[in-house]
Amino acid sequence: MKLHTADDFFEGIRSGHTVTLARAITLIESNNPEHFLLAEEILLKCIPYSGNSIRVGISGVPGAGKSSLIEVLGSKLTEKGKKVAVLAIDPSSERSKGSILGDKTRMEKLAADTNAFIRPSPTSGTLGGVALKTRETIVLCEAAGYEIIFVETVGVGQSEISVSSMVDFFLLLVLAGAGDELQGIKKGIMEIADAIAVTKADGDNVKPAIKAKAEYINALHLMPHPASGWIPKVTSCSAQTGEGVKELWKMIEQFVAFTKQNQWFEANRAGQNVYWMHEKVNAELKRRFYNNPQVQEKIKNLEQEVKEGKLSSFEAARLLMKQN
Amino acid sequence: MKLHTADDFFEGIRSGHTVTLARAITLIESNNPEHFLLAEEILLKCIPYSGNSIRVGISGVPGAGKSSLIEVLGSKLTEKGKKVAVLAIDPSSERSKGSILGDKTRMEKLAADTNAFIRPSPTSGTLGGVALKTRETIVLCEAAGYEIIFVETVGVGQSEISVSSMVDFFLLLVLAGAGDELQGIKKGIMEIADAIAVTKADGDNVKPAIKAKAEYINALHLMPHPASGWIPKVTSCSAQTGEGVKELWKMIEQFVAFTKQNQWFEANRAGQNVYWMHEKVNAELKRRFYNNPQVQEKIKNLEQEVKEGKLSSFEAARLLMKQN
Repeated sequence: MKLHTADDFFEGIRSGHTVTLARAITLIESNNPEHFLLAEEILLKCIPYSGNSIRVGISGVPGAGKSSLIEVLGSKLTEKGKKVAVLAIDPSSERSKGSILGDKTRMEKLAADTNAFIRPSPTSGTLGGVALKTRETIVLCEAAGYEIIFVETVGVGQSEISVSSMVDFFLLLVLAGAGDELQGIKKGIMEIADAIAVTKADGDNVKPAIKAKAEYINALHLMPHPASGWIPKVTSCSAQTGEGVKELWKMIEQFVAFTKQNQWFEANRAGQNVYWMHEKVNAELKRRFYNNPQVQEKIKNLEQEVKEGKLSSFEAARLLMKQN
Repeated sequence: MKLHTADDFFEGIRSGHTVTLARAITLIESNNPEHFLLAEEILLKCIPYSGNSIRVGISGVPGAGKSSLIEVLGSKLTEKGKKVAVLAIDPSSERSKGSILGDKTRMEKLAADTNAFIRPSPTSGTLGGVALKTRETIVLCEAAGYEIIFVETVGVGQSEISVSSMVDFFLLLVLAGAGDELQGIKKGIMEIADAIAVTKADGDNVKPAIKAKAEYINALHLMPHPASGWIPKVTSCSAQTGEGVKELWKMIEQFVAFTKQNQWFEANRAGQNVYWMHEKVNAELKRRFYNNPQVQEKIKNLEQEVKEGKLSSFEAARLLMKQN
């Protein structure tokens, strides 16, 4: 099927044609100027049909079991007839090549599920750029009828902040016996977590998991109460035995009901939208500047002069700005 | 002493007046448009006198002992008559309030040392913005005659990338028994480390430190060889006993000699300067846009309409861009 116009894409997306959805996301992720206008047009058509999903951010250090949990939780949801999309933000994927979700075999069952859509992290560009593209991908997935959207991110501080700016519920996965990590940056992440789940709570790991759970409950007591009015919960689960997974989803549903009732749910999304308005502007400023022919004409020479030490980076930046 | 012109600041900085240096850095960090032009002027005057220091990035998870090591290492260097500056990039400082170096008492001795200058992380703005201001602060410190500049950052992935883009030597501090952290993001960080130091190698910790050292040596074998031609080293040290600290600095001097000899030192800085030229451009694009009166006039209403759901963030961004 050949896709020419934004309408072609829009109709394909709305009718649940996943290949079309995937192609549209590729346009969003593309840095090719020719793709940009079409991608924007598709996006604007989809916006009126977006916003009806539950957006869940899932974070944790590598090995915390993010993919395994999403595989099990996602499958439980698709069995109930829910349409589930799994996206990812992996700021390290550019450097270490291959995103967290690049290896779909880690979600074999879900990847083969017609009610599930899995999309790896965009790999090009800065964290900000990657996050914006993921935010726009959420819009397309919602227009395509996905009711639950998981945004997975590796636990590296900055990316949690981006993810928490695009989800309704933020879940932090932790491993038993990682007590040290309660400190420092983990604190910043715990401050934005609506729940902490101790994963791999099976076999010999059950006792340590119970202990860790208690530690995290204590740790959360020290955290300022979130603006949502929701008291962050600590739970444990096992993707292997399925223990606690159903309860985990029930908790998320409770959160949604609670925050819709006290109006935090909408207020939070409204605040997020202002944030993304600015992120979009920042991305646009760069795109337009670097697509400016005079800029493109000058940039190579200036880079060369900076490389040769004839010009400082600051002086070169000034000269380049003059082209705008 | 009243400072009116860029020349006043420049002379104060060049004559080693630390209060003037501190004030100039405050201008660099300021988001007040009135400060901007003066800060840029000071910066441009300082650039010809910059570049003569050894820039050392020091990273590690909270509790890895960054401040303690810098305190001991820095004091050894100032005793030899070296002028040492300590800067920081802490992307979490905005959220969790108070930067890594905010508490100078963690470097009591160094903070009282006339040959040392300690400056906490800028706390406002994005990681990119914070990093750019630190990069510009390096220029001022070099113009003020500081010969060794430590840039401290907490181990959260993204910030290491920024720091490694502004230093000559990147040192990763690790704690014994943190084997798990070899995985994932740590891998990305180890790829950019010129050396790994196992800290707190004293008392009962000596044996675990030796074991950890061996583990990291093995782990480094799996890493691609860095472009510098330098084979990353693994060492251990104790800020408490001073054990290994002198050797650590000797290693850094060896790295500098080695990379100056094979021309990597200059090539690396040249590449970094191109990177910072683009970062400066990106910061300028934002600054100019948001200082545009038409933009400022429209932005509040657009934010309001987005908050009220009358406008999507993307449509609002488009309308705002029309003001540019």
